[in-house]
Amino acid sequence: MDTIILTKEQISRVLNMDDVIESVEEAYKMFSDNKVILPPVLSFDIEKYHGEIDIKSGYDLVDEVVGVKIASGYANNYENYGISNGQATIILVDVKNGVPLAIMEGGLITDMRTGAAGAVSAKYLARKSSKKVAIIGTGIIARWELKALARVFELEDVFVWGRSEEKAKQYVKDMKKEIPLNYTTFVDIEECVSQADIIITTTSSKKALIQSEWVKPGTHLACIGADMPGKQELETKLFGKSKIIVDSVNQCVERGEVQHAIRNGLVLERDLIEMGEVILGYKQGRESDEDITIFDSTGLSIQDITTAKKVISVLKDNRDVLAVNLI
Amino acid sequence: MDTIILTKEQISRVLNMDDVIESVEEAYKMFSDNKVILPPVLSFDIEKYHGEIDIKSGYDLVDEVVGVKIASGYANNYENYGISNGQATIILVDVKNGVPLAIMEGGLITDMRTGAAGAVSAKYLARKSSKKVAIIGTGIIARWELKALARVFELEDVFVWGRSEEKAKQYVKDMKKEIPLNYTTFVDIEECVSQADIIITTTSSKKALIQSEWVKPGTHLACIGADMPGKQELETKLFGKSKIIVDSVNQCVERGEVQHAIRNGLVLERDLIEMGEVILGYKQGRESDEDITIFDSTGLSIQDITTAKKVISVLKDNRDVLAVNLI
Repeated sequence: MDTIILTKEQISRVLNMDDVIESVEEAYKMFSDNKVILPPVLSFDIEKYHGEIDIKSGYDLVDEVVGVKIASGYANNYENYGISNGQATIILVDVKNGVPLAIMEGGLITDMRTGAAGAVSAKYLARKSSKKVAIIGTGIIARWELKALARVFELEDVFVWGRSEEKAKQYVKDMKKEIPLNYTTFVDIEECVSQADIIITTTSSKKALIQSEWVKPGTHLACIGADMPGKQELETKLFGKSKIIVDSVNQCVERGEVQHAIRNGLVLERDLIEMGEVILGYKQGRESDEDITIFDSTGLSIQDITTAKKVISVLKDNRDVLAVNLI
Repeated sequence: MDTIILTKEQISRVLNMDDVIESVEEAYKMFSDNKVILPPVLSFDIEKYHGEIDIKSGYDLVDEVVGVKIASGYANNYENYGISNGQATIILVDVKNGVPLAIMEGGLITDMRTGAAGAVSAKYLARKSSKKVAIIGTGIIARWELKALARVFELEDVFVWGRSEEKAKQYVKDMKKEIPLNYTTFVDIEECVSQADIIITTTSSKKALIQSEWVKPGTHLACIGADMPGKQELETKLFGKSKIIVDSVNQCVERGEVQHAIRNGLVLERDLIEMGEVILGYKQGRESDEDITIFDSTGLSIQDITTAKKVISVLKDNRDVLAVNLI
């Protein structure tokens, strides 16, 4: 029984953003329909090398695979080794007999499925007429977020803010080539976000960047950056006047953008709605054009699994793919 | 940066039992010297297919690798697919940057390191003059236990007991070819164990097979079978008159052979000695030729890691080994 081995280069050739968006929607639906079992994440703190290695796993009850992702984040990988700060390996195991079906590079899948999260939330929660997006942060995820959003909205304006003006300019320079829209960089973050229909936050900030009063009625915010205890991008007060949708209640309460509002008692856990519940029509997201909607994304292992399955479905019969009988 | 991919066949060609015994000793020492961080095991119960998939991981602080083993057990794999009931994949990740160093078949390593556990315990705990071993159970592990023990003792007699007499006879037939000793099969388990210097138990029994009074003074027992809550091979009473050594106090109290004696209050957790403490000379194992010693093995992820490292050290420069730049 062969195990297929996939490199990042092979995945990058076949995985397109439309497929990833579809995979992430599927993941949210499976999660909210209890079609997946997701154990807690195991984390190794690698203090000595400013890194962290996490083991994220899930049991997909539909296609009967267990997926395991060994994902790491290192602050200085690029500087030290010229490789990505985010390294990952994904293994899919056949639940029928425990044999590994596929082993693949997981960094690209992680970045793309994280990028797709904001777009999926906007598809279901933003006003249909949305044309102006504010991107907060200028890194890899900020790039994938825009690439994904541009697949589901006819955008006109992209407002970009980053701590470094230089990096914001570089972001615009790079993105312009791929997605020709009107780009503006801002030094003042209030100016950047106050005219936007959709705001996507992707920084690793540990204090609020966006004040509540800057956000106009009708805005949709996708908060991608906060995924650990202590991280924060929005002023907590904003949650008091917004409708809140999360990828996972358990994860977001502990490590998502909403953690602070929960701790303050401004938001009650029981009022949180899951993205999958909105997609499935079990619960309503936006109710009027005046609503402010906040999507809090912490990342679910099932997003990796559905996206990895998509890669396999495209590549498994490809003759260039390495298949090894490990067992 | 290349990741090496190793098949079971490649590992079987280079991994010898002496190396595995050395690796397991090293593992016990590292564990008791706090040179490894072992998070709890994650388990997926795959009821539908009579299986289980476990994720066992560890952070080796000496060689700076994180090891992850995705290990499974399926009752009917051989019957259904003609493949081993125990499937496993081991991944070693470089702690310096999160890049996977090696991905390898893990079933053979698991079997061999489990087999070596009994031999390592006997090396440090059995009487030096031990010549007669009783093997309880006739499966894969019962085979590896004998192969390992024969590397560290000059055995003369092998007494074999299994629930199926036929399988016991097959065991003898197979093992005789590899290890020429005097073999005897027994229908009566009391007869089998009462003359042995060393008893190794390898069954998945859920009730005591061996009564306390059958075990003569001076015997060493290696209990390999019990590794889950509810499993049991020895009458609890035997613990009351024995010196007890465990691979891991936490694991054995919960899922080892000693779990029942702990629950009854016959043994106190604080009296348990770790195998690594004995090897390192921090604590004394056997004190006289009259002592009965019991080694309780539940299996440590660091055993997989030290053994996998050994495989890599032998194979990494081999030109036949597949090395793939995944990232």
